[in-house]
Amino acid sequence: MTNNVSFNDLVELTSSLLHKGFGYSPQEAGITATILVEADARGIASHGVSRLAFYRTNLNQGHAHPGRVPQIVHETPCSLVIDGQAGLGCYIADFAVKKTIDKARTTGVCYSSVRNSNHYGIAGYWAEQVAKEQMIGMAFTNTYIAGVPTFGNLRILGTNPIAVAIPEANGQIFLLDMATTTVTHGKVELYDRRHKPMPLGWVVDEKGLEVTDATAFEKTFYQTNYGGHLYLGGVGEESGGHKGFGLALLVELLCSGLSLGASSLQTYSKGGSGQIAHFFGALRMDLFGKAEDIQSHIGQILKSIRESGKAEGQDRIYIHGEKEKEARALSLEKGVFLDQATKDYLVGLCKEYGVEAIKGL
Amino acid sequence: MTNNVSFNDLVELTSSLLHKGFGYSPQEAGITATILVEADARGIASHGVSRLAFYRTNLNQGHAHPGRVPQIVHETPCSLVIDGQAGLGCYIADFAVKKTIDKARTTGVCYSSVRNSNHYGIAGYWAEQVAKEQMIGMAFTNTYIAGVPTFGNLRILGTNPIAVAIPEANGQIFLLDMATTTVTHGKVELYDRRHKPMPLGWVVDEKGLEVTDATAFEKTFYQTNYGGHLYLGGVGEESGGHKGFGLALLVELLCSGLSLGASSLQTYSKGGSGQIAHFFGALRMDLFGKAEDIQSHIGQILKSIRESGKAEGQDRIYIHGEKEKEARALSLEKGVFLDQATKDYLVGLCKEYGVEAIKGL
Repeated sequence: MTNNVSFNDLVELTSSLLHKGFGYSPQEAGITATILVEADARGIASHGVSRLAFYRTNLNQGHAHPGRVPQIVHETPCSLVIDGQAGLGCYIADFAVKKTIDKARTTGVCYSSVRNSNHYGIAGYWAEQVAKEQMIGMAFTNTYIAGVPTFGNLRILGTNPIAVAIPEANGQIFLLDMATTTVTHGKVELYDRRHKPMPLGWVVDEKGLEVTDATAFEKTFYQTNYGGHLYLGGVGEESGGHKGFGLALLVELLCSGLSLGASSLQTYSKGGSGQIAHFFGALRMDLFGKAEDIQSHIGQILKSIRESGKAEGQDRIYIHGEKEKEARALSLEKGVFLDQATKDYLVGLCKEYGVEAIKGL
Repeated sequence: MTNNVSFNDLVELTSSLLHKGFGYSPQEAGITATILVEADARGIASHGVSRLAFYRTNLNQGHAHPGRVPQIVHETPCSLVIDGQAGLGCYIADFAVKKTIDKARTTGVCYSSVRNSNHYGIAGYWAEQVAKEQMIGMAFTNTYIAGVPTFGNLRILGTNPIAVAIPEANGQIFLLDMATTTVTHGKVELYDRRHKPMPLGWVVDEKGLEVTDATAFEKTFYQTNYGGHLYLGGVGEESGGHKGFGLALLVELLCSGLSLGASSLQTYSKGGSGQIAHFFGALRMDLFGKAEDIQSHIGQILKSIRESGKAEGQDRIYIHGEKEKEARALSLEKGVFLDQATKDYLVGLCKEYGVEAIKGL
């Protein structure tokens, strides 16, 4: 536990800061704090409590507004369209996912498309909530512009993550949660801080050409919309960059397309609301037979992959979601790790808002 | 038209060969011929009429059997599980897709999971059939083992393609159709024939290490199950190879997992049936509001991407499906291009089965 903080303490502190400091309602604060701490606990620090700074900026810029109630603007027995009313992303996602699960419980399957929302934390968390109900869970979202299309030079789509969760045997969950860009921006920042050249396939410059100098890239990244992340598969078509770009575009069409929402390019415009769009899905396992049999069969397939031959120098093949699950278990046992900058930031917020700090900060 | 053959003539010839030569029923022959020629017409020669050789081998090996009728083994208002009875893949897919569309017409959405099938041609064709009905179409399939998991050295999953089709404005269709491997095996064969080194990120050898020598790779590829294709993102995690592997695994779980079917590793076993598994989906656009408005909004998003900035040396950003659509239009106008080896193969089949050859062969 040395230097780490207790999971529950951190949720409570984050919730207090959001409520007392940022003006979130207790409900909004509770769900948001849970998602942020879940990310830290799973080792996804880029989406953890350090995001409080971003959430605060969103309030200050008028992108996000506490107290807004999501509105269902279209509904069928197996679908929902929700307008988030420029409220808080985690709260809106929680609302949408619960409604989606409820409908799927009755009809077998439900999809919801959400517009006018904000950042909702790690996509995988939402897909996982569905999978806990013995349904296949899906959670997609567009984001602020980050990536450049194949043969383009302008950032016009987000990191547009895909998350799909499938319940397998023994309560385990296959959880694929991936940005459709090769890497997230946090990785580029890390290489910048360490003055380390980036691998090819991560980013292009304002001419749409591959570059490896993270520091030079970062200098121009925030000045214009030119240059940015490459999608999975890298530059051009030879290594499949057009496939990653296609996945990002698919996410965009499901999120902002089906909800008549804003596209990534229109998100977080000056003075405007966040305009983030999501897409959720829930598909009952027992639509295809006895859920238990299917989950056991899926467990066998995954087992055969875990046990298959290893590359030289490797001793484990990871199934998606395992690393994060193990990190989470360790965080519950030994506390959640936070880097010094994040601790300092939290301590600063505690002083500013008169909230008592927790052990380990 | 010089050297090219008429689209309709080629469908008719292929259908005759399948019927008179291979013993397909007229219905089985018709649908299979259509899919194969559609691939050639779109410039996807790897899945065109040259596949007749593979389809013939499947008959000889007892993997596929003409005259088998697919059986619905489980059914709800929004789902189907189908056993293909080791019949012909294109015929089974046609059966499944039509049933899936029918159910979605009534309930709004339907998924079908199919086991004990065979190769069904280009996945994109099936997704497109759904999109023509103003529904989002999905078609996934596992295949014979081709790819190696991240940190593995054994081929254990197929090229496991993902196809999603979304109707947009003016009858256009966004059509993402991608193998989840970086490239298909046809590309490796091409580099072998040209004695050209492959780019990194395509394949690994029997130790699970990246190699670029296509000729050396091909020599060992067919001798053991060790070494094989990498998934989108390449080797390891730095360039996102675990994401491509995750997509392949997702396809596997939806196809063979939900249908209780064989996994890629168990397909085409000696003397056994093909055991290929598929997954299809249909989701009505009007579940989310007025279909026309949604399609027009999607059209606007795609237009903004087509018109956005180009990389140095590039003059066009392609939306997925455009290249193939344009190639198809050209093939209808000027005839379908076939390489000499494919023409020779067709002429040989015509002689063998006493079928009259067509103009251009």
